[in-house]
Amino acid sequence: MMLDEPGNWGRWGADDERGALNLLTPETVVAAAGCVREGRALSLSLPIRGATSSPAPTTVPHLRGRPLPQHFMSVDGGDYAAGARAIGAGLRMADDALVVTPHGTTTHMDALCHMWSGDRLYNGHPADRVRSYGATRCGIDKAGPVIARGVFFDVPAVRGLSHLGARDRVEPADLEACLDGTGVELRAGDVAVIRTGWPLVWREEGPDGYWAGQPGLSADAGRWLAERDVCVVASDNAAIGGLNERQLADEDLADDLHMILLWRHGIHLVEMLWLEELAEAGRIDFLFVAAPLRIEGGTASPVNPVAVL
Amino acid sequence: MMLDEPGNWGRWGADDERGALNLLTPETVVAAAGCVREGRALSLSLPIRGATSSPAPTTVPHLRGRPLPQHFMSVDGGDYAAGARAIGAGLRMADDALVVTPHGTTTHMDALCHMWSGDRLYNGHPADRVRSYGATRCGIDKAGPVIARGVFFDVPAVRGLSHLGARDRVEPADLEACLDGTGVELRAGDVAVIRTGWPLVWREEGPDGYWAGQPGLSADAGRWLAERDVCVVASDNAAIGGLNERQLADEDLADDLHMILLWRHGIHLVEMLWLEELAEAGRIDFLFVAAPLRIEGGTASPVNPVAVL
Amino acid sequence: MMLDEPGNWGRWGADDERGALNLLTPETVVAAAGCVREGRALSLSLPIRGATSSPAPTTVPHLRGRPLPQHFMSVDGGDYAAGARAIGAGLRMADDALVVTPHGTTTHMDALCHMWSGDRLYNGHPADRVRSYGATRCGIDKAGPVIARGVFFDVPAVRGLSHLGARDRVEPADLEACLDGTGVELRAGDVAVIRTGWPLVWREEGPDGYWAGQPGLSADAGRWLAERDVCVVASDNAAIGGLNERQLADEDLADDLHMILLWRHGIHLVEMLWLEELAEAGRIDFLFVAAPLRIEGGTASPVNPVAVL
Amino acid sequence: MMLDEPGNWGRWGADDERGALNLLTPETVVAAAGCVREGRALSLSLPIRGATSSPAPTTVPHLRGRPLPQHFMSVDGGDYAAGARAIGAGLRMADDALVVTPHGTTTHMDALCHMWSGDRLYNGHPADRVRSYGATRCGIDKAGPVIARGVFFDVPAVRGLSHLGARDRVEPADLEACLDGTGVELRAGDVAVIRTGWPLVWREEGPDGYWAGQPGLSADAGRWLAERDVCVVASDNAAIGGLNERQLADEDLADDLHMILLWRHGIHLVEMLWLEELAEAGRIDFLFVAAPLRIEGGTASPVNPVAVL
Repeated sequence: MMLDEPGNWGRWGADDERGALNLLTPETVVAAAGCVREGRALSLSLPIRGATSSPAPTTVPHLRGRPLPQHFMSVDGGDYAAGARAIGAGLRMADDALVVTPHGTTTHMDALCHMWSGDRLYNGHPADRVRSYGATRCGIDKAGPVIARGVFFDVPAVRGLSHLGARDRVEPADLEACLDGTGVELRAGDVAVIRTGWPLVWREEGPDGYWAGQPGLSADAGRWLAERDVCVVASDNAAIGGLNERQLADEDLADDLHMILLWRHGIHLVEMLWLEELAEAGRIDFLFVAAPLRIEGGTASPVNPVAVL
Repeated sequence: MMLDEPGNWGRWGADDERGALNLLTPETVVAAAGCVREGRALSLSLPIRGATSSPAPTTVPHLRGRPLPQHFMSVDGGDYAAGARAIGAGLRMADDALVVTPHGTTTHMDALCHMWSGDRLYNGHPADRVRSYGATRCGIDKAGPVIARGVFFDVPAVRGLSHLGARDRVEPADLEACLDGTGVELRAGDVAVIRTGWPLVWREEGPDGYWAGQPGLSADAGRWLAERDVCVVASDNAAIGGLNERQLADEDLADDLHMILLWRHGIHLVEMLWLEELAEAGRIDFLFVAAPLRIEGGTASPVNPVAVL
Repeated sequence: MMLDEPGNWGRWGADDERGALNLLTPETVVAAAGCVREGRALSLSLPIRGATSSPAPTTVPHLRGRPLPQHFMSVDGGDYAAGARAIGAGLRMADDALVVTPHGTTTHMDALCHMWSGDRLYNGHPADRVRSYGATRCGIDKAGPVIARGVFFDVPAVRGLSHLGARDRVEPADLEACLDGTGVELRAGDVAVIRTGWPLVWREEGPDGYWAGQPGLSADAGRWLAERDVCVVASDNAAIGGLNERQLADEDLADDLHMILLWRHGIHLVEMLWLEELAEAGRIDFLFVAAPLRIEGGTASPVNPVAVL
Repeated sequence: MMLDEPGNWGRWGADDERGALNLLTPETVVAAAGCVREGRALSLSLPIRGATSSPAPTTVPHLRGRPLPQHFMSVDGGDYAAGARAIGAGLRMADDALVVTPHGTTTHMDALCHMWSGDRLYNGHPADRVRSYGATRCGIDKAGPVIARGVFFDVPAVRGLSHLGARDRVEPADLEACLDGTGVELRAGDVAVIRTGWPLVWREEGPDGYWAGQPGLSADAGRWLAERDVCVVASDNAAIGGLNERQLADEDLADDLHMILLWRHGIHLVEMLWLEELAEAGRIDFLFVAAPLRIEGGTASPVNPVAVL
């Protein structure tokens, strides 16, 4: 995907801030569109449930202790029921606001400025440009939309499980097994969509079950994907890699999945997907679309990724 | 577009809450994907500029008096420069939060619960289900993603202007002129993307110029689009219809564009687009993608719509 | 306390919206000031801990599932350490924002519009004036500051406990025992400050212990206080009355503490105090000061009440 | 004022983080309480007007471009009018949230970490401890409540004006003239309350008039106050010192009022007061009470200061 020359408002990241999204070319975009065969679209996101006077926000999978979304109506139908006057000759309206902290609370795409080690972000950009008023390097506004071929890895399915266990780690052999016999090969510029099934645990066992740890990619699996030049790794767990019961990664720095994918290779990460309907659809390749909000200097954007089958 | 049967999390609106998005069928989705010929993707959104200790938020087009986006970093590179410790063996991270009120402040898609008259929303849904804790009818979570053919109406271009004037209203003849000789005809399920060029006024004349009123569709143009069964009307102005200097519509209830399109016909509206690069691209039809965040009960979602050429 | 005639900005509630705060008269205010004998001031509030990328917010007592305070710095010392330029000749600054939902999360004062039954608020004000854009009747902006004599009821102390148990209910006899032999009698216009010691459980047993229920006033104790014309009841528990393990009151409507005190008698409630230093001070009467923020139409205000000994 | 030994929750700032509030002693507190003679209490704050779907927030004085307060009801009377069910046997409730950025938008008290020059805050505390997750040095949580004698300087009154002009600067001679013949002398530990009358301009001339600049203390007047060991300087303008039409101070670093008072002398500042009723009350000395919310690491707190006459 070649992005247009930026106008004053429509500015994109320079190539050196877009990481693996540079792998998207006119050819990959056209080929991705060619994966639309059934004409069905599936949303891959969790709901954003922010009715804060109720327990609703706590009923959606999230990491323990994170601030949940808050959604407020500033005028609504109840006001008119209570006597509020219409605008002019009879117009009534509802208006609202959203407070959202994407990491760990809802489906989102990480910016390349989200994680690093030492004083340098991905590609050597200085980490001290990530300020309280936003990141002037590698923010989510630099990413641009993802219009790519999605390739689905339903790991629990090939292992014969409904979902992986908290300590399970996805290995390269699992990824290979997912494609085995499908005729689909992972290509440069693809989005690898990895199912662990972990969100099912929230429904089956509640928050404590979900917080007991999380399955995720092993370091080797991360390297396997990076070697194949995917542009995005997307999964239904919270951190691409696995988590222990303290909700931290067990790997050291060299093997940390965010370090391998995001920091070293500039591969964008989409986390906390909901992949259950996609799992039922029986499709391996499809058009994957995710367009992060252009939050200037943001470390992430909530997204509603779509699989077009 | 046939959406899958809802799971417990992946719930969609019933057909009677999705309005004109029901016009999307497997055939329209496949046809829309077929419009991808160049393999270029253009984002059609304004930036979300929320650095609240600076004048930055006020430099993006918005309606006067609306609460602007606020973007906060809760940990960032500055903290590490100031001595914050890395996580474990050396991981550093940035985290953030966004407060956003979409209407009038940024590129967004309206839910069918956003406007109505009397006690009924679109399709007779009771307006008293739109509550402080969210709309249980016709919220933006019911809409689902828009994967459709976009058809571009560059009105100032056919009038030989860089942008329309504050009192200009787009008439059916303008819309017809835009397609004249292009070989493209508006079909059921299309997204009509209407350019007025008004955001240019923000840059040229500043806020006061932008707030002096706004060009927009006439009631007749709204009816013309509704008769052609578009699923979405998208524009770079703030309210699809025009606005006067008090930032209100001049039309009465029968002719109000939100009433004609959103309320009577269930046609979703996408407002405050940035269409300047699209105008330069010289394309009439393309794949239009917009996936509203699944904000339960929301009156709108900020979106980053994408034109795939 | 006679409040001045309102100016255009400095508007107070009419007498019929201020409830028991009308019991404050010039005489009670002067007498309250006369309780300042040692010249020591104690703050009676919990900290507002809103560093949302850390576990800090979850370490302060709160009701389960409530949205915790979020505090964001929009420019800070880290930015300068990372290279941000000073303003003009060398000024540096830090700026911040707070998101707070007072009920159940921090020390706060309830407005008279916070709870009611049927269609009427306290004193017959119509409940349908409590709208999404704020309460135009009985909001916290109508209350005005509390400058009154505080009278301390250290219930666990008279029972020989460090704190009450989750199922303990404070009876009139407990309140009488607290004053017995002190020479202090409760008078009209006093603030009754009731200690249960329950916040200690947060530290001793953690959140699950704190959420197992809460001690509080019995209905009879509520009536006993109302009969004595206190203007405010303030306590270190979350709801003045006790709570069960589902964090709800067990009493029926007639005996609910909010109904007895707030709704029927217009007695303002201050909840989630921190009273441990006051308990050590050995004082029964003192000057109690709490000035709710004038949040127009608010259902509560976070407050930092002060005991001046 | 001697603050109690901190408990685990009720922690105060060490003496070296409380600046001029250390001037409050048991003697000054008792003497301040002795100023209560009439038994009247006046609130000195602007309203917090946060109904964001209306123009209401823009009708209260504020600095241009600052994010205004947002107040949201998350359940309210309209919901019940629209059919929401009562809790249990009939309890109804309203709940809400507030988003507030104190500086420049509402009545607030500055923390000692709000402004500095170079790498050091007040009293040599390192500025790199002011982080995105809050200031661990000199935050508003360290300040403690202000229980002190207020001394009123009604500068426009002594100049025979209803309010000062945008370019007027208050000089030491003005301050002396305010006390002349009153029998009141400024003492160590007093709060100097300075009226400029500038908020009246908001009502008389609207936002543009208010934003044309602001009257304020001259550097000499700042030094005059600092020499007299006041603990707090409080005023009805936005920045204690004057502002030019770009809403910045004209003084250089040596003469900047925040540098003189806050940074060099640790004198807390309370800004954006509403002093019109106090001006009518005819009192020079009174009990001044302001208790900042204990926002951990905050650069300020919204406050509702009270004058008890």
